[in-house]
Amino acid sequence: MTELPLLPPSVIEPIIRLALNEDFGTAGDVTANLLIPAEQNGHLYFKSRDTGIIAGMQAAQMTYAMVDPSMELIVHSGNGSHVKKGDIIAEVKGPVRSLLMAERTALNFLGRMSGIATLTSQYVALVKHTKARIAATRKTTPGLRALEKRAVLAGGGTTHRQSLSDAIMIKDNHIAMVGGIEKALTQIMAKADHMVRISVEVDTLEQLKKALPFAPHVVLLDNMGPDILRKAVNIVDDFDGSSPTLEASGGVNLSTVKAIAESGIDVISIGGLTHSATNFDIGLDAD
Amino acid sequence: MTELPLLPPSVIEPIIRLALNEDFGTAGDVTANLLIPAEQNGHLYFKSRDTGIIAGMQAAQMTYAMVDPSMELIVHSGNGSHVKKGDIIAEVKGPVRSLLMAERTALNFLGRMSGIATLTSQYVALVKHTKARIAATRKTTPGLRALEKRAVLAGGGTTHRQSLSDAIMIKDNHIAMVGGIEKALTQIMAKADHMVRISVEVDTLEQLKKALPFAPHVVLLDNMGPDILRKAVNIVDDFDGSSPTLEASGGVNLSTVKAIAESGIDVISIGGLTHSATNFDIGLDAD
Amino acid sequence: MTELPLLPPSVIEPIIRLALNEDFGTAGDVTANLLIPAEQNGHLYFKSRDTGIIAGMQAAQMTYAMVDPSMELIVHSGNGSHVKKGDIIAEVKGPVRSLLMAERTALNFLGRMSGIATLTSQYVALVKHTKARIAATRKTTPGLRALEKRAVLAGGGTTHRQSLSDAIMIKDNHIAMVGGIEKALTQIMAKADHMVRISVEVDTLEQLKKALPFAPHVVLLDNMGPDILRKAVNIVDDFDGSSPTLEASGGVNLSTVKAIAESGIDVISIGGLTHSATNFDIGLDAD
Amino acid sequence: MTELPLLPPSVIEPIIRLALNEDFGTAGDVTANLLIPAEQNGHLYFKSRDTGIIAGMQAAQMTYAMVDPSMELIVHSGNGSHVKKGDIIAEVKGPVRSLLMAERTALNFLGRMSGIATLTSQYVALVKHTKARIAATRKTTPGLRALEKRAVLAGGGTTHRQSLSDAIMIKDNHIAMVGGIEKALTQIMAKADHMVRISVEVDTLEQLKKALPFAPHVVLLDNMGPDILRKAVNIVDDFDGSSPTLEASGGVNLSTVKAIAESGIDVISIGGLTHSATNFDIGLDAD
Amino acid sequence: MTELPLLPPSVIEPIIRLALNEDFGTAGDVTANLLIPAEQNGHLYFKSRDTGIIAGMQAAQMTYAMVDPSMELIVHSGNGSHVKKGDIIAEVKGPVRSLLMAERTALNFLGRMSGIATLTSQYVALVKHTKARIAATRKTTPGLRALEKRAVLAGGGTTHRQSLSDAIMIKDNHIAMVGGIEKALTQIMAKADHMVRISVEVDTLEQLKKALPFAPHVVLLDNMGPDILRKAVNIVDDFDGSSPTLEASGGVNLSTVKAIAESGIDVISIGGLTHSATNFDIGLDAD
Amino acid sequence: MTELPLLPPSVIEPIIRLALNEDFGTAGDVTANLLIPAEQNGHLYFKSRDTGIIAGMQAAQMTYAMVDPSMELIVHSGNGSHVKKGDIIAEVKGPVRSLLMAERTALNFLGRMSGIATLTSQYVALVKHTKARIAATRKTTPGLRALEKRAVLAGGGTTHRQSLSDAIMIKDNHIAMVGGIEKALTQIMAKADHMVRISVEVDTLEQLKKALPFAPHVVLLDNMGPDILRKAVNIVDDFDGSSPTLEASGGVNLSTVKAIAESGIDVISIGGLTHSATNFDIGLDAD
Repeated sequence: MTELPLLPPSVIEPIIRLALNEDFGTAGDVTANLLIPAEQNGHLYFKSRDTGIIAGMQAAQMTYAMVDPSMELIVHSGNGSHVKKGDIIAEVKGPVRSLLMAERTALNFLGRMSGIATLTSQYVALVKHTKARIAATRKTTPGLRALEKRAVLAGGGTTHRQSLSDAIMIKDNHIAMVGGIEKALTQIMAKADHMVRISVEVDTLEQLKKALPFAPHVVLLDNMGPDILRKAVNIVDDFDGSSPTLEASGGVNLSTVKAIAESGIDVISIGGLTHSATNFDIGLDAD
Repeated sequence: MTELPLLPPSVIEPIIRLALNEDFGTAGDVTANLLIPAEQNGHLYFKSRDTGIIAGMQAAQMTYAMVDPSMELIVHSGNGSHVKKGDIIAEVKGPVRSLLMAERTALNFLGRMSGIATLTSQYVALVKHTKARIAATRKTTPGLRALEKRAVLAGGGTTHRQSLSDAIMIKDNHIAMVGGIEKALTQIMAKADHMVRISVEVDTLEQLKKALPFAPHVVLLDNMGPDILRKAVNIVDDFDGSSPTLEASGGVNLSTVKAIAESGIDVISIGGLTHSATNFDIGLDAD
Repeated sequence: MTELPLLPPSVIEPIIRLALNEDFGTAGDVTANLLIPAEQNGHLYFKSRDTGIIAGMQAAQMTYAMVDPSMELIVHSGNGSHVKKGDIIAEVKGPVRSLLMAERTALNFLGRMSGIATLTSQYVALVKHTKARIAATRKTTPGLRALEKRAVLAGGGTTHRQSLSDAIMIKDNHIAMVGGIEKALTQIMAKADHMVRISVEVDTLEQLKKALPFAPHVVLLDNMGPDILRKAVNIVDDFDGSSPTLEASGGVNLSTVKAIAESGIDVISIGGLTHSATNFDIGLDAD
Repeated sequence: MTELPLLPPSVIEPIIRLALNEDFGTAGDVTANLLIPAEQNGHLYFKSRDTGIIAGMQAAQMTYAMVDPSMELIVHSGNGSHVKKGDIIAEVKGPVRSLLMAERTALNFLGRMSGIATLTSQYVALVKHTKARIAATRKTTPGLRALEKRAVLAGGGTTHRQSLSDAIMIKDNHIAMVGGIEKALTQIMAKADHMVRISVEVDTLEQLKKALPFAPHVVLLDNMGPDILRKAVNIVDDFDGSSPTLEASGGVNLSTVKAIAESGIDVISIGGLTHSATNFDIGLDAD
Repeated sequence: MTELPLLPPSVIEPIIRLALNEDFGTAGDVTANLLIPAEQNGHLYFKSRDTGIIAGMQAAQMTYAMVDPSMELIVHSGNGSHVKKGDIIAEVKGPVRSLLMAERTALNFLGRMSGIATLTSQYVALVKHTKARIAATRKTTPGLRALEKRAVLAGGGTTHRQSLSDAIMIKDNHIAMVGGIEKALTQIMAKADHMVRISVEVDTLEQLKKALPFAPHVVLLDNMGPDILRKAVNIVDDFDGSSPTLEASGGVNLSTVKAIAESGIDVISIGGLTHSATNFDIGLDAD
Repeated sequence: MTELPLLPPSVIEPIIRLALNEDFGTAGDVTANLLIPAEQNGHLYFKSRDTGIIAGMQAAQMTYAMVDPSMELIVHSGNGSHVKKGDIIAEVKGPVRSLLMAERTALNFLGRMSGIATLTSQYVALVKHTKARIAATRKTTPGLRALEKRAVLAGGGTTHRQSLSDAIMIKDNHIAMVGGIEKALTQIMAKADHMVRISVEVDTLEQLKKALPFAPHVVLLDNMGPDILRKAVNIVDDFDGSSPTLEASGGVNLSTVKAIAESGIDVISIGGLTHSATNFDIGLDAD
């Protein structure tokens, strides 16, 4: 599999620095400094203790480089790789003191990101017979947005809007405050920049029908079951004009996702990919 | 209940700033800016959609203050409060544009931290008939260490070591690299600063017996079942010298924690409190 | 006129801090400190020395607030306001030492941003009888992207892509490296996230015809004169499928923009709006 | 020509980091990442599209190094070099994804700084038959002070005061607020540190005569035409005491600078060097 | 006495933030948080335990403001004030937890800066019958340059060059590397910006004689005793041209400074003012 | 002697960056840039001008690396080494401009840290016939905590608490505010985390007796002379329970430390190690 693209180092460096310094405190690793001579070298292996998809490897690499660039990290299973229990994901060599200083931070990044990639891949597997794509949301861990979106990519999902400034989403609260979906869409379609994508959330099929004539790029179908979603798909198919991408959201879990995908919608967005993934268990062992 | 102590603002400001700016991108909330007039004010309510314990409220407060200090956040259920589905946790008033810009970041902090506090409280409830305390580890989300440790406190747990520099923990890797537990403890007990607490990990009861004469402050009993733990407690009780605090770790989950606690140990440390808590569901609604 | 939306303070604070500290050096304003007593107050007026459009007022306000929040800035002509020579744009009161410390930085922001807004408004005026919108590019001053894009908005223009991550633009170099426009579009249309807008640059009408069947959202017509642009518009009108937004770019200046706009294209993007605007002259006088 | 001195990397790194991250957004270059394989290498040439003087090359070099140190930048025309249309200024090789990520930021630095150097060189050429030097002011782009002052040096100019703390300038506002030029100079000459240069602004020849007995190091002659400037030079020549450096300022442009210089003054300071230079056009092409 | 001018907040904020966060660690003041209820208020008094001059009060004020703006600091003896043992320098009120969190950092700033101001004032007192001024050097504590220079001002001294970029000092190493004092001065006098002061170090009277014809602004007489210094003064008095400021440096201490000053030189610069001042003892007591 | 452990680079980089940039100002070393050609290389030697212990070498190394990584620093006497007048501590080679830019900052770090190490070693020598250890306090220079604690280690001392969050110290103010030592200890012993060390300050032997039954880990005996300290040691020896570490503090100087140590206490903590150490004199010469 092709390696997934790296993030620009300057974008993720601040969070890695924060993570390192919160673990170092003022004095660094007092245990290792008292026990291990400066000249002692070691060699450790990242071993998977579970089955899933790896992500967060770039953050791990930058962690090692920022702690001590004399350490060498050899990656066997890069971002997006499938691993099973016992597989060696990577190995790292260098001064033992440096290895111990970097260990917890590197594992914390790998564990969380691989957890997200693995959960994403489970959703993706359940819908692969349909055209539906699995997408993340902005419900990411504060400070880790860029890394978590990449973990979703590693798991086979897609990223969705990265920030409030790179696409327009008209949500229920906007509609309520503006006074109706038609008023909101009228304003937005007239004023939005031509390089910005426009999505509108609808809670009912009636709203969907009101929205279609404005030709929004995406319609978010919020909290609808498979049957209603299927009707939405039919309404759009029957509509004599530009067809929006249809996105389903709300009430999606590993039990419901298959039926939702089979309704014919294009995208399923799931906050749980990032806010409720659990740690992927990786050990760092001497052999 | 007494409000839990606040963290120093300068300690958590960097992560809140990172979180805000990753959500703002270059241009801020393009949707709200096109739809909502600058002078429109609004009033939103944080409503619990689940039963649990609130944490992360200080981060939410700083989020609102950093986005626009003219917004007012009124807290009904502070850190450590028990809430049930439908409870109003807090309310916030101010310019709608500012409310919408801050919403996702505030919710992301509250959801994650309350998830940790809630999970912690479930462990605490299961062991409250014993003397065992539930402790976090350093397996925290990168960048969120201080906030997640406070969330554990909010759930009734205790924090454990905050960083590599504030206590000494001799782990299995250290012991292997130094050449035995006695050699490691000899070095550490002679050289450690008098204000630093010393813990040593043991994998077997034989190691425990070797460790006791060195009078470590804490012994970490790694991956032992309730029966072995009970034997460890007895060995310490019978030891004619200074008794360490006994900490159990490894293989702890909501099913096993009760039996582990009943073995008589003092502390149970659980990485899952922070690395595998799922989101606590909170909505932000207009009424 | 409605006030343009503010940028999030945390987004622009870093550039304002850099600007202040490069002007303060280590010791601040040594002249004022030796000459002016701490308790002396003053009152200064920002006066326009030219005719144009104001922008950069938020940066000026934050400059004053960061130097000394006891100063009061009263804005008469906010972002987007039209001013003529002699108009009082704003006034500021407070301790003279603070007024003098903030003066140059505030003026540097206002002068540059109003210069951009004014130049933009001149282009906008020349095309207002057409449907063409005037758009900025990413040819902005390093560090000032957010502020300069807002200055373009203040002048009546539109912002275009804010960063490399919020829209897809397939440029001539991409096409050359991938091996043709059809190959590039095939890859992109299959893989791009549904919330990202896709633009493709074409240098000839043949390329335009190849691109249309892929239904890109935007086609950038590079360096074509009004006659060729008109043909491009006709090709698109005649195309039996989804019509892209047509954007013209290259060789645009105040002499050529009118004819370009009259060709019927939708957007004209101009690097010169930001990289070659000259200073708008504003004085800060005691009366 | 001798290479101009480099700025300390730690001084300019913050603005380069800001510039990169505003262009990267959260996710970096989404177009290149979808189109170009990670292993594809490329080779691009910076070609001058105009005649002028190069500046900003250090910022360009740091831009490439911070994006990806595996790229190699080979400089043919360093800061201060004269180039004409078609000249190859530099070439850069490396991974195509990295080349494309760094391109816009590097060009934005080079275009602006070379624009300033080129404009400066035009002024310098017009006065080279006189003793007058062309100097920048503090009217620089916020955040770019150090780089723009170096661009003025590259163009043959001189830098003037870098910040409010490295020299004393008594301006008209100071004089008004203190109550007269003699009172201001009395205070300053008594109290100023011996390592700080002192300049005083005068608007009339009467003020000049009042200032001379205080032996200021520099007198700034504000907004005087060539005839008045010549009189000022004569007054100083006739003065029986220490002669200040004479600086002219205000109303200087490419049409007036020659006559101003021929008046015999020492320095001509021009805000327009930095606040109104336009972009120097440089292309980045594959061959 | 007039309050000394404040430093720009943005200049000293970074060092105060570093100081606070190194004292807070990850969790803040764990002792106070366990012992003191959030609502308990307190009132503490800064009492002098010695005789001397106060400095560092602005840093103390910013420390309190950054920890908790609800605390109130009332200053009785501002920067530059003379205090004796038992005097109340300031008082502070507010939540006890916040008072205890800020205490050590505020005292560390006040103790160091007042130590510098006090030592400076001792030198100043010994030379006040002469025209010599006491000046600091760049031998300051890393990170505290601005504050320590202000402490020297508070003690009655003068600041000297603030950084490498605000004045030219040709030192012995420069002269050796360039190949002689005349060559060095020839280069510098021709090329230096007109707003920059030029100083040259001489080790012998012969060097002084060589330097004078170049009209440097300052001559630094390095490591000369009072007799040689007096000869240097005479040489300058007899010189028929512009007289430089004469600065003595090297071998200056509280025993030698009087004789050095009486030699007739203008300035005495002393590294020990900042690098070897000891703490000024201030207590923070509840009554 | 074994090299002392290094601090994590990310922990000390901020203070080194602050130190460099305050010395560079906007333009760097204007003197060297005008005098020394870019291609000139040099070789300088750090020579001790006194007898003592070296510390701060890691900060010096990072200073050189951050200014220009092409410079090479060869260390002859690392942290903790004993040097005498005339010894060559280190040598550095590279471009002269870079050598001169880094010189003052490197020397400022080395001079201050070696001063602390040297003073510490003098205390350590006076008590080496006893079991007492010499410890630092939190009375460190703002921003330099980590480096100064390491300098104390280099001098043979021990570090004590690094920050407010890594150990509990109940001081006289806490006791007063809580209402007595027994109340304070009752609260703390019940609530403190098991990985945190607990110290309590006592002013009298009566307080000591009250404290012992709570089994605090450390008792700080404040401001007691050798005779009282000896009585305190006896009280603890006679106590039938867990013995705390005994720490003496207050009134300690080079004249009193021997008698204090001979009283039998375990630790002597001294603020003066860090707040009143004077500079250790090191020269940087061309041969």
